Amino acid sequence: MSLIPDVPRLFIDSSFIEGDVVVLDKDQSHYLIKVLRLKPLDQVLIFNGRDGEWLSQLEPGETRKMAVLRPLRQTRPQAPANDLHYLFAPIKHARLDYMVQKATEMGVSHLRPVHTQYSQSARVNLERMRANAVEAAEQCGLLSVPTIIEDVSLPQALAALEPDRLLIFCDEAAEMFNPVKALEQHKPSSKLAILIGPEGGFSHQERTMIKERSLTLRLSLGPRILRADTAAIAALAVVQAVLGDWR
Amino acid sequence: MSLIPDVPRLFIDSSFIEGDVVVLDKDQSHYLIKVLRLKPLDQVLIFNGRDGEWLSQLEPGETRKMAVLRPLRQTRPQAPANDLHYLFAPIKHARLDYMVQKATEMGVSHLRPVHTQYSQSARVNLERMRANAVEAAEQCGLLSVPTIIEDVSLPQALAALEPDRLLIFCDEAAEMFNPVKALEQHKPSSKLAILIGPEGGFSHQERTMIKERSLTLRLSLGPRILRADTAAIAALAVVQAVLGDWR
Repeated sequence: MSLIPDVPRLFIDSSFIEGDVVVLDKDQSHYLIKVLRLKPLDQVLIFNGRDGEWLSQLEPGETRKMAVLRPLRQTRPQAPANDLHYLFAPIKHARLDYMVQKATEMGVSHLRPVHTQYSQSARVNLERMRANAVEAAEQCGLLSVPTIIEDVSLPQALAALEPDRLLIFCDEAAEMFNPVKALEQHKPSSKLAILIGPEGGFSHQERTMIKERSLTLRLSLGPRILRADTAAIAALAVVQAVLGDWR
Repeated sequence: MSLIPDVPRLFIDSSFIEGDVVVLDKDQSHYLIKVLRLKPLDQVLIFNGRDGEWLSQLEPGETRKMAVLRPLRQTRPQAPANDLHYLFAPIKHARLDYMVQKATEMGVSHLRPVHTQYSQSARVNLERMRANAVEAAEQCGLLSVPTIIEDVSLPQALAALEPDRLLIFCDEAAEMFNPVKALEQHKPSSKLAILIGPEGGFSHQERTMIKERSLTLRLSLGPRILRADTAAIAALAVVQAVLGDWR
């Protein structure tokens, strides 16, 4: 899969109907007209998470500040979405931005911050998370943007998981064992959730609570200490390679 | 493996002999005395890539600005080093820093920038790379710091690889196939090199040159476009999980 060079790519939260124009909001209009300085008939790739990717062209709007896009042809059909939740203890600003972008690149479908006893950050800006996810999806050629789910406490997050969703618990304290072999015990393409704790790890009480959940796999991410954002990409890579859409 | 909380950790480029003090250079002395404000008898974990990790204590130096550490006891023996080279097309400053830190966390033994036709950056600051590798090794509890090898052109980098080193070529244009199965065809713990290209990919000519090398495996990193720094961690995670020290 490759992008069309020099054609900007935009996530748009409305339906595309062939022959029918899409009117952009103020921010996206500003971005195309003022930042990228596009002119009428310039091309833009658009996706909305439902209708695949379309090549569209810019048309004059009712005012000079308003951008209107006309979908010309579908360039890629909508692919079946992953069902991969990524649960993580919130970290501080710049690194949280980064983590959200990277998890999006790696193909998660849902992102949920989970407050733990040793979380670094008590407040989470969900709108900022969403903006980072949209940006990564636009840049990396994704066809949808992961859903950001409201932050909750660890017990609430565990309670909210469906019983048939495999929880992959990346546990620093897990005995070292082969992560590929451990994952291969489970059915590919099943409903998955990955849980990554704060850099201080989980408390003993939290760890017990997680291990008591029935469909839960403790996974070791090797012999070194990984920072939370590294652990996110590493865990997602191994899970996607063994059970997900890299196969 | 866990670190001792609140005890700073320092890479020191000299030998440790029990009972014999280690005299620090100006920068490291400044860091311990002025930045961390350590006092005599405060503890520091030290490693040099050869003698394992030692708990040491700060002792007064000849001048107030000079730090001297006395090794007290070995806290971890030196582990056998990986033999995993990471070859990559240089990217721009901040993201290069990040990539070097992450590759270090993931356990590479050698880092080598490789200039390609579509590289983003022509100049590489090897000293800065080294500083980033040291910092990541200190923070993540490593026992050694990866070697930074001088940047060269792609043909030179390929020629410098020993014939029995498996080159894992992360190729955006590779047909999608199961990366775990592909890696499992090879012997674990063998001499490895991972090559990640620039975000524009390799040229046709470069790709042909790489594929012509005999012990070379083309690896697909899934259906999405990954940024170079994400691809680095993702590839290293899968390789470490299947052939490296995560097993």
